[in-house]
Amino acid sequence: MKVAIMGYGTIGSGVAKVLEINKEVLTERVGEALELKYILDLRDFPGDPYEKCLVKYYMDIVKDKEVKIVVETMGGVEPAFTFVKAMLEAGKSVTTSNKALVADKGSELMEIARKNKVNFVFEAAVGGGIPIIRTITACLTGDVIEEISAICNGTTNYMLTNMEENGSDYAEILAEAQSLGYAEKDPTADVEGHDSCRKIAILTSLISGKAVDFNDIPTEGISKISATDFKYAKAMGRSIKLLARCEKLGDTYSCRVAPFLLKPNHTLYHVAGVMNAVYIRGNMLGDSMYYGAGAGSLPTASAVVGDMVFLARNIDKPVKIGWDSEKLELADPAMQKYKYFVRTSASQSEIENEFGKVDYSTLDLDDEVGFVTAELTECEFKQRSSALGGIISVIRLA
Amino acid sequence: MKVAIMGYGTIGSGVAKVLEINKEVLTERVGEALELKYILDLRDFPGDPYEKCLVKYYMDIVKDKEVKIVVETMGGVEPAFTFVKAMLEAGKSVTTSNKALVADKGSELMEIARKNKVNFVFEAAVGGGIPIIRTITACLTGDVIEEISAICNGTTNYMLTNMEENGSDYAEILAEAQSLGYAEKDPTADVEGHDSCRKIAILTSLISGKAVDFNDIPTEGISKISATDFKYAKAMGRSIKLLARCEKLGDTYSCRVAPFLLKPNHTLYHVAGVMNAVYIRGNMLGDSMYYGAGAGSLPTASAVVGDMVFLARNIDKPVKIGWDSEKLELADPAMQKYKYFVRTSASQSEIENEFGKVDYSTLDLDDEVGFVTAELTECEFKQRSSALGGIISVIRLA
Repeated sequence: MKVAIMGYGTIGSGVAKVLEINKEVLTERVGEALELKYILDLRDFPGDPYEKCLVKYYMDIVKDKEVKIVVETMGGVEPAFTFVKAMLEAGKSVTTSNKALVADKGSELMEIARKNKVNFVFEAAVGGGIPIIRTITACLTGDVIEEISAICNGTTNYMLTNMEENGSDYAEILAEAQSLGYAEKDPTADVEGHDSCRKIAILTSLISGKAVDFNDIPTEGISKISATDFKYAKAMGRSIKLLARCEKLGDTYSCRVAPFLLKPNHTLYHVAGVMNAVYIRGNMLGDSMYYGAGAGSLPTASAVVGDMVFLARNIDKPVKIGWDSEKLELADPAMQKYKYFVRTSASQSEIENEFGKVDYSTLDLDDEVGFVTAELTECEFKQRSSALGGIISVIRLA
Repeated sequence: MKVAIMGYGTIGSGVAKVLEINKEVLTERVGEALELKYILDLRDFPGDPYEKCLVKYYMDIVKDKEVKIVVETMGGVEPAFTFVKAMLEAGKSVTTSNKALVADKGSELMEIARKNKVNFVFEAAVGGGIPIIRTITACLTGDVIEEISAICNGTTNYMLTNMEENGSDYAEILAEAQSLGYAEKDPTADVEGHDSCRKIAILTSLISGKAVDFNDIPTEGISKISATDFKYAKAMGRSIKLLARCEKLGDTYSCRVAPFLLKPNHTLYHVAGVMNAVYIRGNMLGDSMYYGAGAGSLPTASAVVGDMVFLARNIDKPVKIGWDSEKLELADPAMQKYKYFVRTSASQSEIENEFGKVDYSTLDLDDEVGFVTAELTECEFKQRSSALGGIISVIRLA
């Protein structure tokens, strides 16, 4: 069975490696060999072992009827969308690791796949090496999923873990993560939570069966988290993690991406460094959690190749994923309820005037005080905290 | 689509509940309703909501051509084997939660299913609510699995967690677990590791593609673990867990079930109470872990119903599981290497005479001393420890 890779970067080259290193078991599992025929990339790779597979025009792959499976590891919405669409329309099944593409064009591409009786899958788009997509679409199918909480961005989890362990401040850790290659030159997509937002949009689409627009999800990153916040967290016996959450509310879901203060008995408390984990609560299943590498060339490629085995086993058998193009109207995020940890320069009497009796959690700081509110809706909290004033930072509790 | 349940106990009645409670999403996911037509049980259930479905003769189900999917939740090898075989031969797909049946007759039943172009699946047989079977057979298919370490028995993990937290001794905790219904009257299968042994035999069969005989796996339970062992563990900053392990060794695997001393950074260290977790290391994927309820009526039923959705989606489409009837010759367990924690009444000079320089980990006990050996094969360790004598207990380190 002939296959092609579009995009010969970190993940694409990882896919070529996995196909080579695990050739024997893959052949056994598929029933025939997965033979790499093309690699699409505009760059030249002189001396590369796959040099002879390299092509610069996607139509070369589209036109080749022998190619049944195409891997998209280019990233970004365009030209990935145009290329993937053309492959599906040419009767080829596609797997992608590209969460931007799936979050933006997932419903449309699944519809095109359905019409052309091929499959479009994307295990590597969320949680790298964690097989969370197939867990939701093919394993936890007996359940109504009531909650997902995910640490699904390795860059930010690495940074938060290091801030916690070393007491460093945000800017310092960002520079270090960039020098180690864990954070990009422009780290916005990671540190501002956009990446996590796209991922929870994809997961919420899968569990609801409808299309979630990631623009509807309130998203905060970690760029405002400071060394002082971690000092408070330590005093409270908690850790700070960037969570991407969705929770069932009536017929729909309520979503948010934000840093949260986690207790040690929270399932995600111990998830450290670049590792990712997804907590899922089902109405029958109860608690479950899936943990693994969130990124990296080989773990992500492993997920892509797992998808290739799936596609090879299901040639001419379109498999239902259950994510329609109908839009899911998310529940109003202003009605979500949390306890909030607040740092403020306001006085104790001012605090109690607005928030009533609260739990104080103070460090030896002259000009501020920290406290945890009772459970309030986002809406109530906003009103009271703006009335209070002097807010230095706010982190929700989970 | 008509379905039947064989065995109306804890899990079987859970399956009936899940089918009822989640009827709407199940119908959506399958494309038609899963209608419960028969429940096979020798007992009477007067007043039960499914009373009219109850039958006493399995041939009533075999003969009914409308029934396409049968659930086996009776437990034990016979008569479950006879009944399941008859269902498969009658062209019905089967899912079972029965690890004894799968460990003993799995290869044979899969072969019968293949011949009759139906499916035989068993997600609930290992790890209850953790979808570990499908994760291995349908998700991590890009990898060669190099290691599995599993906490896959809720009873023993509950007991060990309580011994650790309360300092209780084994007999006391067993009585408590029995009174709470967490341990059976005859707890042998759980506490002596037989249940975990069958489960790791199943998982090793799945990753190797060959049939593992559970009788070949050296198995120790927790019945010799004492409150004193936990005092030593605490002094070493470790926890004691019953692990079921397999590790790739050349072309085969090396397996063992035994209590192990785990460090806090071990992926399974924090798995407490009745929860289960499976650690998997793939050659491309690296570390991953899957956590959830190991038992219980609804979590286990959730896995069974997930299988029913799979079976319904694959009527007339036999799906390859990749577990042949050829026997896997496991690697010689005597060649496995570990560090061993040893309690002995021997003197320090006797210890160092046999084991050279060791790490002592002593409590304030008059008549014994604890130490950790260097890494040794099982074989070497046995020789040296029997030469030393005065052994009170031995626990391996992981």
